Amino acid sequence: DFMNALEEVHPAFGVAEEELQQVIQNGIIHYDTVVDELLRSGQLFVEQVRSSTRTPLVSVLLHGPPGAGKTALGASIAQASRFPFIKLISPDSMVGFSESQKVNAIQKVFSDSYKSPLSVIVVDNIERLIDWTPMGARFSNAVLQALLVLFARRPPKGRRLLILATSSLRSILTDIGFAETFDSELRVPPISSLAALEYVLREVELFTSTEERRAAVRTLRDSGIAGGSGEEGDDGMSSKLQIGIKKLLSVVEMARQEPDNVGQRLTGALMGLGM
Amino acid sequence: DFMNALEEVHPAFGVAEEELQQVIQNGIIHYDTVVDELLRSGQLFVEQVRSSTRTPLVSVLLHGPPGAGKTALGASIAQASRFPFIKLISPDSMVGFSESQKVNAIQKVFSDSYKSPLSVIVVDNIERLIDWTPMGARFSNAVLQALLVLFARRPPKGRRLLILATSSLRSILTDIGFAETFDSELRVPPISSLAALEYVLREVELFTSTEERRAAVRTLRDSGIAGGSGEEGDDGMSSKLQIGIKKLLSVVEMARQEPDNVGQRLTGALMGLGM
Amino acid sequence: DFMNALEEVHPAFGVAEEELQQVIQNGIIHYDTVVDELLRSGQLFVEQVRSSTRTPLVSVLLHGPPGAGKTALGASIAQASRFPFIKLISPDSMVGFSESQKVNAIQKVFSDSYKSPLSVIVVDNIERLIDWTPMGARFSNAVLQALLVLFARRPPKGRRLLILATSSLRSILTDIGFAETFDSELRVPPISSLAALEYVLREVELFTSTEERRAAVRTLRDSGIAGGSGEEGDDGMSSKLQIGIKKLLSVVEMARQEPDNVGQRLTGALMGLGM
Amino acid sequence: DFMNALEEVHPAFGVAEEELQQVIQNGIIHYDTVVDELLRSGQLFVEQVRSSTRTPLVSVLLHGPPGAGKTALGASIAQASRFPFIKLISPDSMVGFSESQKVNAIQKVFSDSYKSPLSVIVVDNIERLIDWTPMGARFSNAVLQALLVLFARRPPKGRRLLILATSSLRSILTDIGFAETFDSELRVPPISSLAALEYVLREVELFTSTEERRAAVRTLRDSGIAGGSGEEGDDGMSSKLQIGIKKLLSVVEMARQEPDNVGQRLTGALMGLGM
Amino acid sequence: DFMNALEEVHPAFGVAEEELQQVIQNGIIHYDTVVDELLRSGQLFVEQVRSSTRTPLVSVLLHGPPGAGKTALGASIAQASRFPFIKLISPDSMVGFSESQKVNAIQKVFSDSYKSPLSVIVVDNIERLIDWTPMGARFSNAVLQALLVLFARRPPKGRRLLILATSSLRSILTDIGFAETFDSELRVPPISSLAALEYVLREVELFTSTEERRAAVRTLRDSGIAGGSGEEGDDGMSSKLQIGIKKLLSVVEMARQEPDNVGQRLTGALMGLGM
Amino acid sequence: DFMNALEEVHPAFGVAEEELQQVIQNGIIHYDTVVDELLRSGQLFVEQVRSSTRTPLVSVLLHGPPGAGKTALGASIAQASRFPFIKLISPDSMVGFSESQKVNAIQKVFSDSYKSPLSVIVVDNIERLIDWTPMGARFSNAVLQALLVLFARRPPKGRRLLILATSSLRSILTDIGFAETFDSELRVPPISSLAALEYVLREVELFTSTEERRAAVRTLRDSGIAGGSGEEGDDGMSSKLQIGIKKLLSVVEMARQEPDNVGQRLTGALMGLGM
Ligand SMILES: Nc1ncnc2c1ncn2[C@@H]1O[C@H](COP(=O)(O)OP(=O)(O)OP(=O)(O)O)[C@@H](O)[C@H]1O
Ligand SMILES: Nc1ncnc2c1ncn2[C@@H]1O[C@H](COP(=O)(O)OP(=O)(O)OP(=O)(O)O)[C@@H](O)[C@H]1O
Ligand SMILES: Nc1ncnc2c1ncn2[C@@H]1O[C@H](COP(=O)(O)OP(=O)(O)OP(=O)(O)O)[C@@H](O)[C@H]1O
Ligand SMILES: Nc1ncnc2c1ncn2[C@@H]1O[C@H](COP(=O)(O)OP(=O)(O)OP(=O)(O)O)[C@@H](O)[C@H]1O
Ligand SMILES: Nc1ncnc2c1ncn2[C@@H]1O[C@H](COP(=O)(O)OP(=O)(O)OP(=O)(O)O)[C@@H](O)[C@H]1O
Ligand SMILES: Nc1ncnc2c1ncn2[C@@H]1O[C@H](COP(=O)(O)OP(=O)(O)OP(=O)(O)O)[C@@H](O)[C@H]1O
Ligand SMILES: [Mg+2]
Ligand SMILES: [Mg+2]
Ligand SMILES: [Mg+2]
Ligand SMILES: [Mg+2]
Ligand SMILES: [Mg+2]
Ligand SMILES: [Mg+2]
Repeated sequence: DFMNALEEVHPAFGVAEEELQQVIQNGIIHYDTVVDELLRSGQLFVEQVRSSTRTPLVSVLLHGPPGAGKTALGASIAQASRFPFIKLISPDSMVGFSESQKVNAIQKVFSDSYKSPLSVIVVDNIERLIDWTPMGARFSNAVLQALLVLFARRPPKGRRLLILATSSLRSILTDIGFAETFDSELRVPPISSLAALEYVLREVELFTSTEERRAAVRTLRDSGIAGGSGEEGDDGMSSKLQIGIKKLLSVVEMARQEPDNVGQRLTGALMGLGM
Repeated sequence: DFMNALEEVHPAFGVAEEELQQVIQNGIIHYDTVVDELLRSGQLFVEQVRSSTRTPLVSVLLHGPPGAGKTALGASIAQASRFPFIKLISPDSMVGFSESQKVNAIQKVFSDSYKSPLSVIVVDNIERLIDWTPMGARFSNAVLQALLVLFARRPPKGRRLLILATSSLRSILTDIGFAETFDSELRVPPISSLAALEYVLREVELFTSTEERRAAVRTLRDSGIAGGSGEEGDDGMSSKLQIGIKKLLSVVEMARQEPDNVGQRLTGALMGLGM
Repeated sequence: DFMNALEEVHPAFGVAEEELQQVIQNGIIHYDTVVDELLRSGQLFVEQVRSSTRTPLVSVLLHGPPGAGKTALGASIAQASRFPFIKLISPDSMVGFSESQKVNAIQKVFSDSYKSPLSVIVVDNIERLIDWTPMGARFSNAVLQALLVLFARRPPKGRRLLILATSSLRSILTDIGFAETFDSELRVPPISSLAALEYVLREVELFTSTEERRAAVRTLRDSGIAGGSGEEGDDGMSSKLQIGIKKLLSVVEMARQEPDNVGQRLTGALMGLGM
Repeated sequence: DFMNALEEVHPAFGVAEEELQQVIQNGIIHYDTVVDELLRSGQLFVEQVRSSTRTPLVSVLLHGPPGAGKTALGASIAQASRFPFIKLISPDSMVGFSESQKVNAIQKVFSDSYKSPLSVIVVDNIERLIDWTPMGARFSNAVLQALLVLFARRPPKGRRLLILATSSLRSILTDIGFAETFDSELRVPPISSLAALEYVLREVELFTSTEERRAAVRTLRDSGIAGGSGEEGDDGMSSKLQIGIKKLLSVVEMARQEPDNVGQRLTGALMGLGM
Repeated sequence: DFMNALEEVHPAFGVAEEELQQVIQNGIIHYDTVVDELLRSGQLFVEQVRSSTRTPLVSVLLHGPPGAGKTALGASIAQASRFPFIKLISPDSMVGFSESQKVNAIQKVFSDSYKSPLSVIVVDNIERLIDWTPMGARFSNAVLQALLVLFARRPPKGRRLLILATSSLRSILTDIGFAETFDSELRVPPISSLAALEYVLREVELFTSTEERRAAVRTLRDSGIAGGSGEEGDDGMSSKLQIGIKKLLSVVEMARQEPDNVGQRLTGALMGLGM
Repeated sequence: DFMNALEEVHPAFGVAEEELQQVIQNGIIHYDTVVDELLRSGQLFVEQVRSSTRTPLVSVLLHGPPGAGKTALGASIAQASRFPFIKLISPDSMVGFSESQKVNAIQKVFSDSYKSPLSVIVVDNIERLIDWTPMGARFSNAVLQALLVLFARRPPKGRRLLILATSSLRSILTDIGFAETFDSELRVPPISSLAALEYVLREVELFTSTEERRAAVRTLRDSGIAGGSGEEGDDGMSSKLQIGIKKLLSVVEMARQEPDNVGQRLTGALMGLGM
């Protein structure tokens, strides 16, 4: 059927261009220096894998609140590596899989990666891959155990592998025994400053005039949502503004539906987020 | 057999007219402004999906007490969209399904929707879809995980999808990790004012004369059930009247059985509901 | 074999005469006005289903202590409807069924009912249908979920259905999420007055003379078992006499085994029931 | 093989002579009046089933401490009925059966019984039939539910059935919901008086002379094990002597191994039983 | 393969010579009078089975701390019976068996034993047979229930059976309902006196001279490990020395690896055992 | 496929050279006397198996914190034995195995070992083999039970076996009943002295000059990380420095990525490890 047809488009081996594009559909907006730092750190891990023979396996965890941009950043770093093998392991393509089907699908990507001298695997959304639910603390131990072994298993001689994993539930990972598994961790923060927010609003051209945008930001500043008090600089220290870029983009599009009322809908939505 | 025959009537693809009709059999009674507001909000989400390329997926939760009218409203909004693909995912058609049969049936509707440029899926009664029972907090994690992924998975390029889900157990959704999954939430309240109640009674023509209807409403007001004290306006603030439209329609029909005694049976039933 | 042969006697479709007779083998004794009131309420629900187009589905719960007569009353109401489709769903015919066999058998009865314009289904002994055991609070969630959906699913257009369910464990039904499922509930009480008891004794002709029967009742009255103090009327208010009609009939038959000693065995048994 | 060969000896239908004999191998010793009372009560139930049309099903529970003689008494009562169908349902013949094999085997005996106008079924050792273990309170709910239904299901018209069940765990039966299932209960007590004990010793001819037996009993009396103080009569009220007839017979045989020392081994064993 | 080949060597029926030898490879050292008493008790049970018709089934539990010699003693008693059927049921030959394979294998040995007039079955290491683990108190209830029935089921007429079971977890047996199952119990103690220890050292010829052995024992006495204070006799009352013969033999062999240093390694190991 | 091809390279029988090499890829650095002591202890166990007929089975546990070098040391000891059969049982080659596939794979290695007069089996990472997760204390009881039996089962006559097992979770092993299973235990400690650290840095030639290395070590000493205060000797008593050699080698390679900044990155990483 259609879904299968879609999948046949991707070659089993090599670089999963389309899948990676799919998760960066809205691009990367450089709303804060942290965005560039994260991309740079990613690049360093890519280089380590490329050059150090002593560490043929490097695993990195990208963690942060829901919608902070973990998947998009992981995919961007992977793509930028230009390694001959780049794949995404995502729950999106495993709906309805049994535990063993999941384990097999995951393991296959790792096995395939061993055929390439240099590989990157993005393991997206660990909590969903292991079917985690907080009620009763249920999860698939079979998938978890497979990940624990695959994340620590050295590739065969002459092969190098970079693993980029993402998760919104950093603390759960410790509880289930995932601690100490990663060589390194990168935290992807939510947007918490008005400067970053305004940067995004400008990029997505929500407002037709600079005036309107500034008015909206001013409303937010006056509401005390961002915690700061100075006029120009807000440090976000005690900021109540904590919104992932993904959610922000969604709120923006809703506001866009009422052209006459964009500012009010945007600020209303942001202030109503329980912030 | 008969059931299969019934199902063959619905084309696998396109708009499930009959199923949608089935859940709005008693129509929509505009007993309160909240009814219109809910329909209007629904329309805005429909428009967002139609027009914004940045948010090809929008998911909305309709929640409220049992019988408040969630399913009928969701189906009405879906129908009004006039999108080429409108489907209902309902536990009614999955009795006796195994976990994996359920997941497959659900996933199939989503896959089918990807063949249409514009789609609405009504996912009815989440607690029943996941086989939720409060005793022992049991539920199907397989179905839950499938929903969590499907509600967040972006449609393929060029496809747009609106998800309208319903549930009576808003707080359970948070407990099982469904929080943050929806782009937006709409609360469907029960009827809690005598004005709304009287509106319904008039619409369904329970009483043969206006006199009788007024007498019945007066009895209720005097009983203090609606909390208010003024003669015309009751604000429902401290109202003990909390009845879903579905239950109200059922009570009305029972009362209708004793033509000589309609008023007494109605008021007796309403005041005996533990209100 | 024999059991299969027995079953072939019942036509798959229509009215399950024999099964209904089997559960009313000892008839209905009108020992109290409550018996007639219950039968009359049942009749009203039958009429509502027959006449109201707005409520094509009506579900009623008959609940009360073990042996109070729930099954016999449910079957009697069903039989009296003279609807073209009357069936009993009972654990008696599902011994050794797997969960899915049970669900299928139950669902089949509902599907079959949709072929008749007017139907009654007696769903007997819910706790046994769901394999309920208090230790560890175990039960079949699959059967429970099927019942929850089937009890709320509207029949197809033009079909009407009355569901009469029975249970001894009213409070468990709430705990497992069965609350709010029924349109109405009827409580079947145990026998708790000496007048009712004497009525039964007279009907079943346990004693050969009126004298003997009166002597036995006097013994019970003097023992204080019925709580009352007046000579003729006992109100049962603080009555310790709480015995289901089914148990009472069993006690009567045991007493009958010692013809010389009937009175003593009867009163001994009744007073020894932990009452 | 051998076991199968053994089983083929028993006809599938009718009276299981050999199996019943097997469990009464050591006969019934009338060591106390309670033994005769139990047999007489059993006979009354047999008569009730034979004669009363209103109670075609009577179920009785024989309960008491391990080894008290429950199985032997149940089998004796059954045998004495001389009904055309007498069967033993015992865990001994179900080792290694799956849950459903057990349920089927049990149900088959009940179905078979319906072919006979008069039947007795001895359901031996309920706790073992349901695979009960106190640790974690595990048991087979499937077998339990089958028993609950079968113990309450009326035989078809014209068939009568007496059920004699045995259990050492009376209180567990209540906990798992078996309460109220039986029409009657009979308690089989352990041996707790020296008179009963001496009666058994005489019957099994453990001692070669009356002198020796009396000496042994005197030793026990002096040890205070039986609680009494008078020389002839001991009432067993505060008796620490609590031994099932089965265990007593086992202790007797061990003592018999050392002919020179019978008395000492017997009294030593009895006083060392933690009594 | 090799393992199968090994097994084919043992005839399916009769005496499992090789298996029994395997578990007594290091012989029985008579280090204490308790060893002889245990063997004598075993012999008495063998005689009881051989001679008493009233107790065709006798079951005995050998329990004691890990490595105390339970298996070797059980096998020795069995072998000494010279019964025509002697078998060992051991977890060693059931690695990787499913629950039902285990139950079948166990049941087969019992069925086979019924073909012989006189049989002994050694049921080794109950906790391992039932897959016991203290964490979560997990175990195979299927195997447990099979053992409970098989240990109490009387052999067919004319057959006699002695069951010798071993376990290191006496208290767990009570917790899982194994209490009251055995006709008798024998406790196999650890070595706790220096006299017994020295006896063993002499037997296994660890030291090349009597002098050296005495010096080692003196070191242990001076360390206070054995609790006693007198020079010659130690009563072991408050002894901290508690070592199974199996562990002691292992410690001896390790010490033997450093010929120059035997005494020091031995005493060091013994004193370091957390005693 | 590729993975299978890789595996075919290893002969099913004999010495698994390649697998052993794979886990010692970075060699053994003799950074502390404890490294040599561990290797020597291992050699003694090898000798005991080679020479003592009384202990044909010796099992040793290598335990210590994650990355301490347990696997590499176990593999080194095994390789040095030059026994004809040396195998590694590792979770790496069992990803996606079912419980029974795991048990079979493990058991096969033990069975194969019985064909060789002298064998060593390295059982790596017990917690992963049994699928251990701390949340809910889940693990595969089937694999655990197989290991418990295999670790205690004596090889057939004339065969000798050394088992070297590794684990990071010593305390869990006790909780799940693994205590008392091993003949001996060896603790592999983390690096906790600056001397050992410096030794490693010199070996891996992280710094281009001795000067730079000394400066880095001085920075660490001044930071108080190693607990000591003297200039030359640090005893590691109250050292906060606790790093496995594996993690240290990983940190070293990351630092190597920024040639201009090696010292700072190294010390920064070490001090940031939550030490
Ligand atoms: N600086 C940025 N970093 C990450 N994503 C960005 C950035 N700027 C814009 N985006 C867009 O924001 C969205 C981020 O969504 P993404 O799915 O990566 O978030 P997430 O943290 O993985 O969410 P979830 O917690 O739901 O998995 C993407 O559509 C991406 O194109
Ligand atoms: N304003 C209204 N809103 C919703 N439903 C209405 C309204 N007026 C009349 N109805 C009728 O009331 C009934 C509402 O039932 P519906 O099944 O939608 O409630 P629900 O909240 O989904 O119930 P449940 O909690 O059982 O799922 C329908 O028959 C519908 O036709
Ligand atoms: N007034 C009455 N109401 C109900 N049953 C009656 C009445 N008079 C006599 N009976 C007889 O009493 C018996 C009642 O048993 P029934 O099985 O209906 O009770 P129940 O409450 O369903 O029991 P259980 O709790 O075991 O399911 C039947 O045999 C019925 O014929
Ligand atoms: N008066 C008696 N009552 C019962 N059994 C007796 C009596 N006298 C002798 N016996 C013998 O004692 C034994 C009683 O064992 P039985 O198996 O019936 O006890 P039980 O209570 O069923 O034991 P368990 O609790 O193990 O099931 C039988 O061998 C029986 O022949
Ligand atoms: N007196 C003795 N009693 C028992 N075993 C002895 C004795 N003397 C020497 N041995 C030897 O000691 C070893 C005892 O080991 P055995 O396996 O019987 O102990 P166990 O208590 O069954 O251990 P486990 O608790 O591990 O099952 C055997 O090798 C046996 O040959
Ligand atoms: N002295 C040493 N001891 C052990 N390993 C060393 C030593 N020196 C260098 N190494 C290297 O350090 C690494 C140790 O990793 P290894 O996998 O053995 O640790 P581990 O304790 O088994 O880790 P884990 O807890 O993850 O299983 C290996 O690459 C090994 O070559
Ligand atoms: Mg993501
Ligand atoms: Mg609904
Ligand atoms: Mg009933
Ligand atoms: Mg018994
Ligand atoms: Mg043993
Ligand atoms: Mg390791």
